Amino acid sequence: MMKNNQFAIMPVSHEQKVRELTEIGFLNNSTIITDATELWLSFLHRAILTNPAPAGWNQFCHNTLATEIYTLEEFIARGLQINESVFKLVSLQLLEFEDETDFQVTDPIQAWDTIQLPAVNITNNSNSIIDAWYDLLCTHTKNGVQYLDLLTSQGFFVSTYSKSIDSRPRFFNGKALAVYDESKLIREVVYVETDIDTDNDHHADLVKVEVMRPVETNNGFKAPAVYTASPYNQGTNDNWGEQRTHNVHTKLHHKSSETHSSEPVFSEDFEYQITKGITKQTEETYTHQASYTLNNYLAVRGFAIVYSAGIGTKDSDGFQTCGSPEQTDATVAVIEWLAGKRQAFTNRTDGIAVTAWWCNQKVAMTGRSYLGTLATAAATTGTPALKTIISEAAISNWYDYYRENGLVMAPGGFPGEDADVLAAETFSRTKNVGDYSKVKQSFSDYLDSMTTSMDRNSGDYNEFWQRRNYRSNIKNITADIMMVHGLNDWNVKVNQVKSLWDELQKLPVAHKIVLHQGQHIYINAFRSIDFTDIVNLWLTNKLWDVHNGANEIIPDVIVQDNVAPETWRSFDNWSTNNPIKWQLLPHTLSKNSTSANEQQSFNDQLDEDTFRRFDQHPEQWQSELLTSKNGYSLLFKTAPVKDELILRGTPQLTLSVASSKNYGMISAQLVDFGEAKRFNISPTVLDRNGIELGHLWQKDDLREFQLASKSSPYKVISYGHINMQNRTSSDKVDDLNANELVNLTFNLQPLFHHLITGHQLGLVVFSTDFGMTIRANDDLKYTISLDTSFLKIPSFQRI
Amino acid sequence: MMKNNQFAIMPVSHEQKVRELTEIGFLNNSTIITDATELWLSFLHRAILTNPAPAGWNQFCHNTLATEIYTLEEFIARGLQINESVFKLVSLQLLEFEDETDFQVTDPIQAWDTIQLPAVNITNNSNSIIDAWYDLLCTHTKNGVQYLDLLTSQGFFVSTYSKSIDSRPRFFNGKALAVYDESKLIREVVYVETDIDTDNDHHADLVKVEVMRPVETNNGFKAPAVYTASPYNQGTNDNWGEQRTHNVHTKLHHKSSETHSSEPVFSEDFEYQITKGITKQTEETYTHQASYTLNNYLAVRGFAIVYSAGIGTKDSDGFQTCGSPEQTDATVAVIEWLAGKRQAFTNRTDGIAVTAWWCNQKVAMTGRSYLGTLATAAATTGTPALKTIISEAAISNWYDYYRENGLVMAPGGFPGEDADVLAAETFSRTKNVGDYSKVKQSFSDYLDSMTTSMDRNSGDYNEFWQRRNYRSNIKNITADIMMVHGLNDWNVKVNQVKSLWDELQKLPVAHKIVLHQGQHIYINAFRSIDFTDIVNLWLTNKLWDVHNGANEIIPDVIVQDNVAPETWRSFDNWSTNNPIKWQLLPHTLSKNSTSANEQQSFNDQLDEDTFRRFDQHPEQWQSELLTSKNGYSLLFKTAPVKDELILRGTPQLTLSVASSKNYGMISAQLVDFGEAKRFNISPTVLDRNGIELGHLWQKDDLREFQLASKSSPYKVISYGHINMQNRTSSDKVDDLNANELVNLTFNLQPLFHHLITGHQLGLVVFSTDFGMTIRANDDLKYTISLDTSFLKIPSFQRI
Repeated sequence: MMKNNQFAIMPVSHEQKVRELTEIGFLNNSTIITDATELWLSFLHRAILTNPAPAGWNQFCHNTLATEIYTLEEFIARGLQINESVFKLVSLQLLEFEDETDFQVTDPIQAWDTIQLPAVNITNNSNSIIDAWYDLLCTHTKNGVQYLDLLTSQGFFVSTYSKSIDSRPRFFNGKALAVYDESKLIREVVYVETDIDTDNDHHADLVKVEVMRPVETNNGFKAPAVYTASPYNQGTNDNWGEQRTHNVHTKLHHKSSETHSSEPVFSEDFEYQITKGITKQTEETYTHQASYTLNNYLAVRGFAIVYSAGIGTKDSDGFQTCGSPEQTDATVAVIEWLAGKRQAFTNRTDGIAVTAWWCNQKVAMTGRSYLGTLATAAATTGTPALKTIISEAAISNWYDYYRENGLVMAPGGFPGEDADVLAAETFSRTKNVGDYSKVKQSFSDYLDSMTTSMDRNSGDYNEFWQRRNYRSNIKNITADIMMVHGLNDWNVKVNQVKSLWDELQKLPVAHKIVLHQGQHIYINAFRSIDFTDIVNLWLTNKLWDVHNGANEIIPDVIVQDNVAPETWRSFDNWSTNNPIKWQLLPHTLSKNSTSANEQQSFNDQLDEDTFRRFDQHPEQWQSELLTSKNGYSLLFKTAPVKDELILRGTPQLTLSVASSKNYGMISAQLVDFGEAKRFNISPTVLDRNGIELGHLWQKDDLREFQLASKSSPYKVISYGHINMQNRTSSDKVDDLNANELVNLTFNLQPLFHHLITGHQLGLVVFSTDFGMTIRANDDLKYTISLDTSFLKIPSFQRI
Repeated sequence: MMKNNQFAIMPVSHEQKVRELTEIGFLNNSTIITDATELWLSFLHRAILTNPAPAGWNQFCHNTLATEIYTLEEFIARGLQINESVFKLVSLQLLEFEDETDFQVTDPIQAWDTIQLPAVNITNNSNSIIDAWYDLLCTHTKNGVQYLDLLTSQGFFVSTYSKSIDSRPRFFNGKALAVYDESKLIREVVYVETDIDTDNDHHADLVKVEVMRPVETNNGFKAPAVYTASPYNQGTNDNWGEQRTHNVHTKLHHKSSETHSSEPVFSEDFEYQITKGITKQTEETYTHQASYTLNNYLAVRGFAIVYSAGIGTKDSDGFQTCGSPEQTDATVAVIEWLAGKRQAFTNRTDGIAVTAWWCNQKVAMTGRSYLGTLATAAATTGTPALKTIISEAAISNWYDYYRENGLVMAPGGFPGEDADVLAAETFSRTKNVGDYSKVKQSFSDYLDSMTTSMDRNSGDYNEFWQRRNYRSNIKNITADIMMVHGLNDWNVKVNQVKSLWDELQKLPVAHKIVLHQGQHIYINAFRSIDFTDIVNLWLTNKLWDVHNGANEIIPDVIVQDNVAPETWRSFDNWSTNNPIKWQLLPHTLSKNSTSANEQQSFNDQLDEDTFRRFDQHPEQWQSELLTSKNGYSLLFKTAPVKDELILRGTPQLTLSVASSKNYGMISAQLVDFGEAKRFNISPTVLDRNGIELGHLWQKDDLREFQLASKSSPYKVISYGHINMQNRTSSDKVDDLNANELVNLTFNLQPLFHHLITGHQLGLVVFSTDFGMTIRANDDLKYTISLDTSFLKIPSFQRI
């Protein structure tokens, strides 16, 4: 059964409802209807858009059921009166719910409640109809859009296109309306000049910027900018990426001391372009673009959409640096141009400057993964025009992406990837073969230097990583931040956002987070949550300064439940202060404080066949790690839990452990054991191109997480890894002797997990992680002393 | 390595190339350039579209490599001359191929050949440049579109929009150009009146039709219509479909004689609507539509696009009848309206008639699965305005979809589905709850009568199926036919198209077939074949009467190879007349004529656990059927083949078999045994929304079949099933006694399969097919007498 979860509805007074309904043409000041039924019918009539002729209304009345027995046609003919049941039955049909599937015509009120539709109070007073109709317009249909957005897609606002050139943006319920002409959007290109010369050609790097803005800006309408910095947007260089991918069949070794390798510095010996003229008129356009559907949604709602791939990409200058301060500078340069603080040119050669004269100088950044990462990077510079970022699945510290506690660590699914590989992969200047021929050698040399300075050999945190750790600059943030992260994201791991979230608590900026049950995905087209509306409310507040209460209305923490489909809950914070300590006992995790004076061992070496099989099929390794009796791991389980628990926050594992050699790495996973139908890994596309983002405009696929058709015995919910020689910190090498018991304390990935009654929490301790670590099938025996080993999960509570 | 396969290039004379290049503005009559290099540069200049200012050209010259050493900028500065290598190197870049991935700058000529790009002959005569440039415009880029279509997407024809209102369509190389204004397409709805009353309301059923036509039709341009009849297009009724799904856990039984149940007849006691007026102006529009991307491609190329869901769907009258003649009538009614031979109204009630005055009265039909099926059905009526159909994965006989040789048979993946289920599933009148409330009971009663008359109990061919067998009417076909089918389509099986194809040989209509390696999919966005161009050439010929040689240029049979990726070959026919007979010997298929006087047996009954497991996991059944020693099947294999073979046509299996009871069913599969990396089951999306179907218009996902990353030991390439009591035919019940040896001869699914050296052809004989048949775990022992059992595959030959 579908469930509606809306977090972006602004509560408004009856007077404001009247005002807003008048503005969009449902009410008008000259004709005031006082009869409740008559008023309701007038609203319905106004909502018939595809055939405005009388036959269209008649057909609607014939097609719509008003009571269990009567169509709306018969309801009108019999002079019946509106009541709650009639309103709800007809509204369910307007919202595209289906008879016998979503509701029974005999009891629309029950379905209304089950689906979690908003409370309405229908009386014979026409004001009650106004209130209910307003709320209905804000309510989501079965198919993932507000009812008003459904009407919008059917052309509700087409007649207002000519009016919107009065330069005033238009809102309803605190959210920007799609009243801009989708067929006349202006697409133009400028080249923004940066303050860096990463390709060492003695000219300041220019970056190409693609702008899409409402034609209404040509008539005085000032648009805010929604900017996505995407190194992928001009294509990728898979060839170089593959060639640079590292061998993961390397052996861990003893580290004697910290190694120090620093990154080459880019020369400051460069010149800016000489400005030879200034114009309001760009000369270059574009037609093809890999666009984010959320941006497409915003494009017809008065937001100018801006993309830049940045340094080292097709049609721009410079090198890809994988997250260095130079890339951040180039990212911010675009914001500065939008804010009128920096120069851009109509083309790369003529020196004709062009300003963002159409922009209201307020900027938001959007995007997922590397895109969200650059938004985060930009925010940490405190650049003033950047009012907010919506960063999804974003990296806040590149060390945590490619390293962990002194170990080389691959993002899940990308063994052998590293900073230099990603720089190579995103270097799309290769696509302009002539341009590329001039920088091929120098960029290749630069990548070699990256390979050295990122130091795959030690795995330690060093200057290279320090330069790519945006969390060092969190204090500079002035933008309000909305974060989105998948609790099952093993690519950009959950600690990336948790660390940022925790630090943000100390700052005077608004911050919100949405945690979903997906992996590394976008969530703006899900049926069960109004994420797009949340973004609209948020950006309307941040970029138009509309007092819509976005900071208060949107919950600080929204979490998708991992058990019940289509269930999202709001919380005040991520963690709670209720740490529970689980003692390791033989095969057991125990809340009792008694400890076992016992040692347990495992050997990381596998027989050759098994090693080869796991190496090629990491999913088989994962399965056998948790379900087979084996000599290469230790498993500890709680008793089946008696009451439902929520695990909230960052688990911390302390182990007393010895390696049989003078080096070693320890891995751990937390597991929810219990046969259950869990969510599918990826959301299901319910309707391909089913969501209309405007009127005859772009579309999106309606999606939703569904339960798998078959049950599974377990799910890994957290994990972590540590080099035994980085016990103190990732930038310090601790000594280690063979067979010496040492204490390791390290964090596992943060979680927000609902552990249901009867399930068991499991901890598995092992060494080689075939999904993420290097692997050499080394003969290493690890021994754990249980009495001083324990797991703390900071936040347990009943749901 | 990418390989280009183009089948829709029309060979034209130099004079025609000059004429066409002049028409689209590459050449003009007043300025004639005689220097080859200068002419080539002028062509390149004209192809710079996103920045027509001088800086755009300069940047292009800087970005493009003309020789191994020089950019085009340097090439021009040095006054160098065009030659073959320069032309090919620059063209590879124009075609979006990539340095180091697709070509080496040191040898563009080799890459040109490897990718299979068209021969060009560059001399210092400017005519050679004209010829080569023309051919280049017709050549596909790396990303699945003609180079001219790439230019089109960048706005090449935008300036011609105003000119196209001269009512003359525009073509290049025999294919229609995208010169129609995508932002001004007219979307309108009409209601076509049929000659049937399937819902028995005493009024002729009206069907809703959605039309999208170029605005240029308002100024005298007459557009042909591309019409897709899709029962799914107004949504589906999954709820009813699920409820009607049949239990497959039923037992086969002895049939004593044919049962006769006939279908209810729809009343002819109905009235037509009284026409109260006539207009050229429709009143209803639409905005949301589930559209076929091929139609979107055609919509900006001067074809009007027409959709109708037909009887029994939302906003139309009538019942869903699953392929009955009434559904065909309603489908054809739309064609008749387009041809000016039938009435349609602006709405359902007012009686205002509207003609398709904008149509040139020539119609094509497109679509896959049920959509292609209705196209096939319409073609078999011989309705004169229907000039061609492009039927993809279409049913030609519903008996072969839900039955086989006297057995109930599910389409692969849909156990328990039957004609009544599909009728229920597509009955979308439920979506208008008021309308639905009036027909709910009567349609439910009708479905009950279908359930009876389709006769799941016997599985025999009867009057119900006869009415749904379009092949009975093949002789009526006057439309030219293009067919597309997946050789791995287990839903609409390959015999559906093979039977049609074979019959068409006898008719004087043009017929073409494309056989691909997919399942039940569309193929219009594949990188390796120019299917969209083929359709364009074909429709331009059929609907505009352009003499582009489509019948001759397009090969009769195009087949995608199952071994080499991106390889398509043309053939004169599907089968060859070279049947080979394989004798069944113990565990062996032998080409020798010696037979073994031996009987072999299997028992269809499994232990309970295995039965339950197979029932729930048919993929496990399939795997164990072929790889385990088991008692429920017999496996026969050839020796590893010494020379590559192509199996072409319909295999025929003859078995001498006895059942231990007086009923029984026999199933067989043909298998390609041999460890190999085979194609993935589904194509890979190379670039989501990567294909632009026009200028700022709809997009499609670029796709391609890729080899799986892992090898597999076998692949099932054909299969068949028969009821032992339908040895003579599917409409006749033969007697059967327990333990009586009878001769069965039946066809397996047609194939076109490349069996490579070292692989073995296997035949497995069994009874219950957990993918498709009913299953009761009945204790049935089957005995096969090998000496009179053999397999004929009609077409073997070396590649």
